[in-house]
Amino acid sequence: MSAAALAAEIRAGRRRAIEVVEAHLADIAARDARFNAFTEVTAARARAEAEAVDVAVAAGQDPGPLAGVPIAVKNLFDLEGVVTLAGAKIERDSLPARADAFLVRKLREAGAVMLGALNMDEYAYGFTTENAHFGPCHNPHDLTRIAGGSSGGSAAAVAAGLVPITLGSDTNGSIRVPASLCGIWGLKPTYGRLSRRGAFLFVGALDHLGPFARDVADLALAYNALQGDDAEDHAQAWRGPEPVSLEGGAEGLRIGILDDHFARNGHAEAFAAVAAVARALGATHRVTLPDAAIGRAAAFLITMAEGANLHLPNLRARPDDFDPGTRDRFLAGALLPATWVQQAQRVRAAYRARALALFDEFDVLIAPATPYVAPPIGQEMIEVDGQMIPVRPNLGVYTQPISCIGLPVIAAPVAGVATPGNLPIGVQLIGAPWAEDKLFRLAAHLERIGACRAPEPRNAPNGNPHA
Amino acid sequence: MSAAALAAEIRAGRRRAIEVVEAHLADIAARDARFNAFTEVTAARARAEAEAVDVAVAAGQDPGPLAGVPIAVKNLFDLEGVVTLAGAKIERDSLPARADAFLVRKLREAGAVMLGALNMDEYAYGFTTENAHFGPCHNPHDLTRIAGGSSGGSAAAVAAGLVPITLGSDTNGSIRVPASLCGIWGLKPTYGRLSRRGAFLFVGALDHLGPFARDVADLALAYNALQGDDAEDHAQAWRGPEPVSLEGGAEGLRIGILDDHFARNGHAEAFAAVAAVARALGATHRVTLPDAAIGRAAAFLITMAEGANLHLPNLRARPDDFDPGTRDRFLAGALLPATWVQQAQRVRAAYRARALALFDEFDVLIAPATPYVAPPIGQEMIEVDGQMIPVRPNLGVYTQPISCIGLPVIAAPVAGVATPGNLPIGVQLIGAPWAEDKLFRLAAHLERIGACRAPEPRNAPNGNPHA
Repeated sequence: MSAAALAAEIRAGRRRAIEVVEAHLADIAARDARFNAFTEVTAARARAEAEAVDVAVAAGQDPGPLAGVPIAVKNLFDLEGVVTLAGAKIERDSLPARADAFLVRKLREAGAVMLGALNMDEYAYGFTTENAHFGPCHNPHDLTRIAGGSSGGSAAAVAAGLVPITLGSDTNGSIRVPASLCGIWGLKPTYGRLSRRGAFLFVGALDHLGPFARDVADLALAYNALQGDDAEDHAQAWRGPEPVSLEGGAEGLRIGILDDHFARNGHAEAFAAVAAVARALGATHRVTLPDAAIGRAAAFLITMAEGANLHLPNLRARPDDFDPGTRDRFLAGALLPATWVQQAQRVRAAYRARALALFDEFDVLIAPATPYVAPPIGQEMIEVDGQMIPVRPNLGVYTQPISCIGLPVIAAPVAGVATPGNLPIGVQLIGAPWAEDKLFRLAAHLERIGACRAPEPRNAPNGNPHA
Repeated sequence: MSAAALAAEIRAGRRRAIEVVEAHLADIAARDARFNAFTEVTAARARAEAEAVDVAVAAGQDPGPLAGVPIAVKNLFDLEGVVTLAGAKIERDSLPARADAFLVRKLREAGAVMLGALNMDEYAYGFTTENAHFGPCHNPHDLTRIAGGSSGGSAAAVAAGLVPITLGSDTNGSIRVPASLCGIWGLKPTYGRLSRRGAFLFVGALDHLGPFARDVADLALAYNALQGDDAEDHAQAWRGPEPVSLEGGAEGLRIGILDDHFARNGHAEAFAAVAAVARALGATHRVTLPDAAIGRAAAFLITMAEGANLHLPNLRARPDDFDPGTRDRFLAGALLPATWVQQAQRVRAAYRARALALFDEFDVLIAPATPYVAPPIGQEMIEVDGQMIPVRPNLGVYTQPISCIGLPVIAAPVAGVATPGNLPIGVQLIGAPWAEDKLFRLAAHLERIGACRAPEPRNAPNGNPHA
């Protein structure tokens, strides 16, 4: 049942929030062992919050548009009284958070009920959620495969139907990659749109937060609730609330299909997904985003250097407590010369200017979200364009060039495309800065005409679990 | 004669712009050899512009508030048809600029007449204008001494009375230091206030442009003319024009005197200057800007790394063509690890937040502008607090902690303070971001009551030149 439907039932008094929460807690207890999406279930908190929702409804008050909707967040969001792990063993030594993250507070103010914290790559530095400390997250569509990352738990929890809405973070693709591999909707808003207060940052210059959902209406419901002015996040560029709607249709939207970099570097299913969406829209304009690969290289360097700096004291004091994969990336970042990173920043600025010029001609650009469907857990190399390359970094080949210049993106699960193992795959709907409204109009249209839709996973409550 | 007085005469038709320009050109030809302020005199351009002003006045049009006023700019500002040297021999190989810098254009639109380009430290990386290629700039108050830098030519030209208004740039103190040593007024506006298009940048994250003048009215006249929206400077945060006035007095301005870092690291005359201004204002509140020295360290690292990156190709290809002093600073910057610079950026952000909090209690903070009066040309070491330290970097000891967080500052020449050799020295009037209006109110008040005033140099037209 969707968040919108649940909230409607609860607000109308036809269903009690506490019953909804108990059912979800029981489902998580029964099924999450196979996904390993949750690292913490906040059952007592969820029950208390649900009771409060029910009291409010009984008193004739409106708890808000997410009344009683169960939610969960990537474990880098602060939850009051819970240790914010950010996927790291090292953070187990930290004190519990003293307050909820800003976005958690916003969802709570809209009536949502917090069920817990979700698995991720250590310190958000990865695309696979094969976490050495907390175990890999399993894709609900095939438990032998990765859910993607770094917000793998957030995507898997929604895809598996454990909760209808979750939050993740996206530095180089960490919302869009798992959304694509798990076959759900994900939003990476414009850089600076949503406050990051109370989230364990990775790369301040590139970090975005955003929601996952199984349909566009729920994604919009979450996104509208998340907006709010926060003077404490200096990166936030607050323009007042700009709620999106699903009305308006795709009429008048000028669609461009990204070619060049975005038509290489992946498997056939990635391009088939883009072609299917283009066909559904009657979109025929192909356009090149100049220097996308160079922009991506800049994103790598900025990520490595800023991430390394953030963790330098622990890298020096207790390197063995890191996930071996992230540690080596961080150490490499700590060795970069400053002039390389300066150059990356200059390259990024020039690349951004060229990219923004495309929006004079187009409203939405379409590109693959991932270069392939979910690879098996543990697979390190994959063949692309006749070469064996590492699975993990290449998962961001299409997302990094977009996030490094802050453009808003909806990752949309594409329907009716033949893929290996019938696994899901998504596309990116990419907008100009602050043009989330157009992305939602297009996403709602694609869902309405059946071109994009979250597939039912094999491991859904009524599915056929492997485990 | 001040810019305001000249413009009034010319606008009223009582004096012709071409006569004013000819007189200034003759004065520069006669006297600039002793200062070495000009690296290029644009006589033909100046004459043509002056004639156009006269034609406009004769036709009953108003050429603007700077009608016929002779100006000149640091040689890092583009002047159409002139090679932008930025103090560097290397740049002699560059093509002439195809257009005037944005701020040059703004002054021209206000009626000013361009007389030429002015000496500076190579690539603006210095505080002394002891330029290895173009020779040192001499202080009009004592020709054996430096004018300060890196906008030394801009300050010397105004102090010597060669032109009433010039432009400079300030990354770590390059407007405020020479203003202090030459005994004139200088404005470093809020970071992002004035467009930098067409200026040869040094450190994009820290570069500011601004005017010099011999009185506050001229400084305000220049600043008001310089304001304008320019989408091409991405660092500009345009809020619409906010012209300043000299009215309003100092009534109601809450004044704080910076102590700690700003009450050490210099000679007695620096603190006597601050005390004199405090006394004139009846200001008694002393306040600490926490971590100013740490903020300054961050400014050093950011400057070194970003400056080095900008010049890396030439540092590799033709290191011997650099000024030996700047080359070694750039090379050191090219060796910095990225994580040091990341840390510097983080430190700067935290320091900025603490600094801004002071403006809850104060409107203007007062600090020394330089730690001592102008040292002799060629002097490398100086005794401060019982230790021998290098002259050059320490000249920015009070300015770097302010510019690295973008606060607006007026450098004000202090009157009636006993100094070595009766040389001038200035103080910084420091405001909250975008509060230039309050700085001008205070500056005008200090000038009106005689506490701050540009002294007549010994090498003025009617002075007693050494050379």
